[in-house]
Amino acid sequence: MHMDQRAFQDYYPDEVSHCYGCGRLNERGLKLKSYWDGEETVATFFPKPYHMAVPGYVYGGLLASIVDCHGTGTAAAAAYRAEGRAMDTQPPIRFVTASLRVDYVRPTPLGMPLEIRGKVKKIEGRKVVVTAAVSAAGEVRVRGEVVAVRIPESWMSRDASADSPR
Amino acid sequence: MHMDQRAFQDYYPDEVSHCYGCGRLNERGLKLKSYWDGEETVATFFPKPYHMAVPGYVYGGLLASIVDCHGTGTAAAAAYRAEGRAMDTQPPIRFVTASLRVDYVRPTPLGMPLEIRGKVKKIEGRKVVVTAAVSAAGEVRVRGEVVAVRIPESWMSRDASADSPR
Repeated sequence: MHMDQRAFQDYYPDEVSHCYGCGRLNERGLKLKSYWDGEETVATFFPKPYHMAVPGYVYGGLLASIVDCHGTGTAAAAAYRAEGRAMDTQPPIRFVTASLRVDYVRPTPLGMPLEIRGKVKKIEGRKVVVTAAVSAAGEVRVRGEVVAVRIPESWMSRDASADSPR
Repeated sequence: MHMDQRAFQDYYPDEVSHCYGCGRLNERGLKLKSYWDGEETVATFFPKPYHMAVPGYVYGGLLASIVDCHGTGTAAAAAYRAEGRAMDTQPPIRFVTASLRVDYVRPTPLGMPLEIRGKVKKIEGRKVVVTAAVSAAGEVRVRGEVVAVRIPESWMSRDASADSPR
């Protein structure tokens, strides 16, 4: 399915790759990786034993986090597609979350991989709305919706100028 | 304000004190602590440097997590109040999240304490709806709403029976 793809998050410029949920440069973070699968997007995440709500079940805040980052990742990928651009072209596109909604449909068992699937609901200017479903053992456990807003290009200058904060 | 109170979460039975967001027994967790302040509830949380979205700003999934746990804690405290009971009386009351909504009103700066304030919007049978606001430097950054559902007492038996899973 996505063996030949780099994850969306691996295209983010260094300056915006420190996110706790999905930044490849955040050593303490969750490092979520999202990919295209046809018209949908998909990520797999294996919670740690301590990502617990009550014994045996995954913590809701962790589930909200992976929905959030899969949502902003999907929004970025969809914006590149809408512009007919590959994800390694300039200028970079990255989104932040304006609003997040998560419905815990049924408990999410701990100790197995979770599949997060995203769909683009709409693109409106700089705003992209993504719906997501998190499944474990083949059953949907969580449904979410992310309203993502494109961040200004000026936050992500790749110009290696002498006065760069990095 | 709450110097003379134990946190809501410190009353949770051991069996349900492993939550990554607020369980006192989760060594890797965030250990959120919530208290009454008149008719509102309040918690303070100091994000770690790695709880980052983009440099200088707090990760949205972390903000969702503290809204979530402050919401379920507030729901439990409100349920005790509604029954005219102290939080150390039996049977224990604890809630899980059915639904979580978080609006990121403005960016949340990293490197300072956050104040989370909760209000009980309604109590309907086993369901409690809590609204929350997260502030930094005196300004509201995030608004949230948690729909919390009371978990069955049978999940939290304190009877030390021979066949207890603990």
